[in-house]
Amino acid sequence: MAPAASVAVENLNPKVLKCEYAVRGEIAIHAQRLQQQLQTQPGSLPFDQILFCNIGNPQSLGQQPVTFFREVLALCDHPCLLEKEETKSLFSADAISRAKQILATIPGRATGAYSHSQGIEGLRDAIAAGITSRDGFPANADDIFITDGASPGVHMMMQLLIRNEKDGILCPIPQYPLYSASIALHGGALVPYYLDEKTGWGLEISDLKKQLEDARSKGIDVRALVVINPGNPTGQVLAEDNQYDIVKFCKNEGLVLLADEVYQENIYADNKKFNSFKKIARSMGYGEDDLPLVSFQSVSKGYYGECGKRGGYMEITGFSAPVREQIYKVASVNLCSNITGQILASLVMNPPKVGDESYASYKAEKDAILQSLARRAKALEDAFNKLEGISCNKAEGAMYLFPQIHLPQKAIEAAKAAKKAPDAFYALRLLESTGIVVVSGSGFGQVPGTWHIRCTILPQEDKIPAVITRFKAFHEVFMAEYRD
Amino acid sequence: MAPAASVAVENLNPKVLKCEYAVRGEIAIHAQRLQQQLQTQPGSLPFDQILFCNIGNPQSLGQQPVTFFREVLALCDHPCLLEKEETKSLFSADAISRAKQILATIPGRATGAYSHSQGIEGLRDAIAAGITSRDGFPANADDIFITDGASPGVHMMMQLLIRNEKDGILCPIPQYPLYSASIALHGGALVPYYLDEKTGWGLEISDLKKQLEDARSKGIDVRALVVINPGNPTGQVLAEDNQYDIVKFCKNEGLVLLADEVYQENIYADNKKFNSFKKIARSMGYGEDDLPLVSFQSVSKGYYGECGKRGGYMEITGFSAPVREQIYKVASVNLCSNITGQILASLVMNPPKVGDESYASYKAEKDAILQSLARRAKALEDAFNKLEGISCNKAEGAMYLFPQIHLPQKAIEAAKAAKKAPDAFYALRLLESTGIVVVSGSGFGQVPGTWHIRCTILPQEDKIPAVITRFKAFHEVFMAEYRD
Repeated sequence: MAPAASVAVENLNPKVLKCEYAVRGEIAIHAQRLQQQLQTQPGSLPFDQILFCNIGNPQSLGQQPVTFFREVLALCDHPCLLEKEETKSLFSADAISRAKQILATIPGRATGAYSHSQGIEGLRDAIAAGITSRDGFPANADDIFITDGASPGVHMMMQLLIRNEKDGILCPIPQYPLYSASIALHGGALVPYYLDEKTGWGLEISDLKKQLEDARSKGIDVRALVVINPGNPTGQVLAEDNQYDIVKFCKNEGLVLLADEVYQENIYADNKKFNSFKKIARSMGYGEDDLPLVSFQSVSKGYYGECGKRGGYMEITGFSAPVREQIYKVASVNLCSNITGQILASLVMNPPKVGDESYASYKAEKDAILQSLARRAKALEDAFNKLEGISCNKAEGAMYLFPQIHLPQKAIEAAKAAKKAPDAFYALRLLESTGIVVVSGSGFGQVPGTWHIRCTILPQEDKIPAVITRFKAFHEVFMAEYRD
Repeated sequence: MAPAASVAVENLNPKVLKCEYAVRGEIAIHAQRLQQQLQTQPGSLPFDQILFCNIGNPQSLGQQPVTFFREVLALCDHPCLLEKEETKSLFSADAISRAKQILATIPGRATGAYSHSQGIEGLRDAIAAGITSRDGFPANADDIFITDGASPGVHMMMQLLIRNEKDGILCPIPQYPLYSASIALHGGALVPYYLDEKTGWGLEISDLKKQLEDARSKGIDVRALVVINPGNPTGQVLAEDNQYDIVKFCKNEGLVLLADEVYQENIYADNKKFNSFKKIARSMGYGEDDLPLVSFQSVSKGYYGECGKRGGYMEITGFSAPVREQIYKVASVNLCSNITGQILASLVMNPPKVGDESYASYKAEKDAILQSLARRAKALEDAFNKLEGISCNKAEGAMYLFPQIHLPQKAIEAAKAAKKAPDAFYALRLLESTGIVVVSGSGFGQVPGTWHIRCTILPQEDKIPAVITRFKAFHEVFMAEYRD
């Protein structure tokens, strides 16, 4: 055997080769290169900075962390501080008491020890209490698996449910490509259902049913339904009635409901409200025996935006004890998630309350972030809708707009000549002309023949006018060049 | 379809069902239950505390974190502190300057942002510099993938290399069960090679060769060799000559060398020294084209023992650009590892130096931990070797002893009647009599017909006499009961 022959790329796991992950794909890598070029050769590009609108990463764009959360983290990282007099003038009183309370729940106050594989019990208690108060229905610490962000939880469930390429997972199209990537890595079949752009990315039960039956007729054993609410990349917030129907559908069809609820705090539409699927199921009278349900939450999103801390949890209900043992076993092979992320997950589900010293400043920080996000979403939506050939639904929630771009035939042909999907061609031209990074709709899936981009609402508010101006200028030139 | 039928345990992924992970398996779960019982019903068991010797988790047993590392983490978690006058009296000057230096390498000083999927470039530079200074051969930040501990890196490589059940990975027996678990989860074949207990857990190239040929003759495509150095659970430190032979073997046979080097700082034998496999390969004149090599390191081990922080890295050399792109893609699906762990990984590879304000206290903390671990290893080894039917090799490194227990036939039969492996039966009796938790050898693999336990050297030094006394008393009673 020739040396190193074993690692030729064609000899790698074909599931890995097949997997795609657009959010950090070609365009993001190209943007990194351009950013380096701006540093090493200033003035060599038609713009002076890269504007990252491709990924839900608020703090990379200047959003400041919530002070209270970071005070508690610092104190838990270096508990000696709690014994020093100076600490009282550097930290708020409730951050100090919260850190003490958290440390008291950690055996030996050891924030550097592996924890229980589901996460520290006291922190899971806090998370369960937060869910209970959010939903008005009880939650149980035994049902919580604290994870390094939502992604590892999603992988864990895919790993459990997918046996082979005949096992299917119903996923929305457009979808967050974590799902398509994870299904590909685990060798299953993505069974698509389409969100209806015309009704504000509505989720039609009739389409779900049709896709399920179609997949079953092809011999696919459909095991679970993924619902992302609020939607990514589509930004819609499901109506309560729609959620009832989804829960009923899962119960009737024997599907696991995988509820991606990481944007639960990001609601911008006055007439919309986040309802967890667990709350919906319980309010329908459905209990443990009716519906296997997993809810994913993350510290990366919301007003907290603590992506780099890699914290999150999944709440698992409706699974039998032997299945739960298998989930626990898989979690235990990675020992536990990081303790900083665990602490943060407990904090976002149990933030300062009225009467706490930090409450006023915490509330002010939270409101400022969420109100600003709502304004940014509206400004971008309005700007997109004013451009020729672009139509954009409202971002009711989450952190994204997903405008449709009606590309002229000439642009589609130019893309074809360049061996790119038309929307990827458009996104690449946008990047190269303006420094604005978006992800093309083909990375998320879309109705064939339609073209979209996903643009985050995350650039700081003072940069939004520049994004709009540059985008508009680019789009007009692009359309002038390719108009049929 | 009956509701919830899709999640009957027998319908889960058979790879998951097959996977075993003894370190957090039955005995660990039983120990957790007993610990709860001690809390709720004190006095109900023949011991007053559980002594966890089952897992390499130093801080859970009272080891204190290194002060300098935690100072830097706290400052990076809450950078506002750097602007306050009081901070100077609470933190060492070099922790303050290091935190500033780290924050300066993070775009926007944003410790709450997702980073590059390989980790923050400035931190990878620090890690590469640490490797260069350790080995005397250059290391490159582009080759570093910072990970949430070593385990996710191992999974990533298994995921890349294993296509199906005909792909084999050579693993030592005994081995750390992360490897068997990961190979099972990815559906590959574990190709065992035996470490020779008689020569202090020696790694014989002749056995490697024999097992490789045997596997190939069965149609297994052997893709990689796992070497754990210092050894887990076996505690041996490989001799330099042996490492040369291993590198040559991998080159000649076209195998990827997966080098688990997480115990690189844990060396207790005066005549032994840690050499990285990369240093060995480079000193043989082997470069990028000769050998695909992955080195795993973790912040969980060493004198730092920061298991809960989930930090680590893999250094990847000898892979082609297209293969590296695939590794990057898989890393990017999980976005990035946690930033606290990333910072810590850079700190352990670049600790305080002579002349830094913290150096003396850092050095004192480090030496005290490592010297105490060496004394604990010796005390336990001596104690084991004094007991009837127990023989125990020296722990030259790592954190474990793996004594062989020559169980009487009557005990083996009693185990059989209880449907347990004989060493699991012994370990369970030990736990129930003394509260001491060890892992049975069958969880790691062993020569058929031999029986072992893995016992960490991690209980604090003042508890070691109690461990020894209780163990001795138990063992004498056990042998009296079952002696043939």
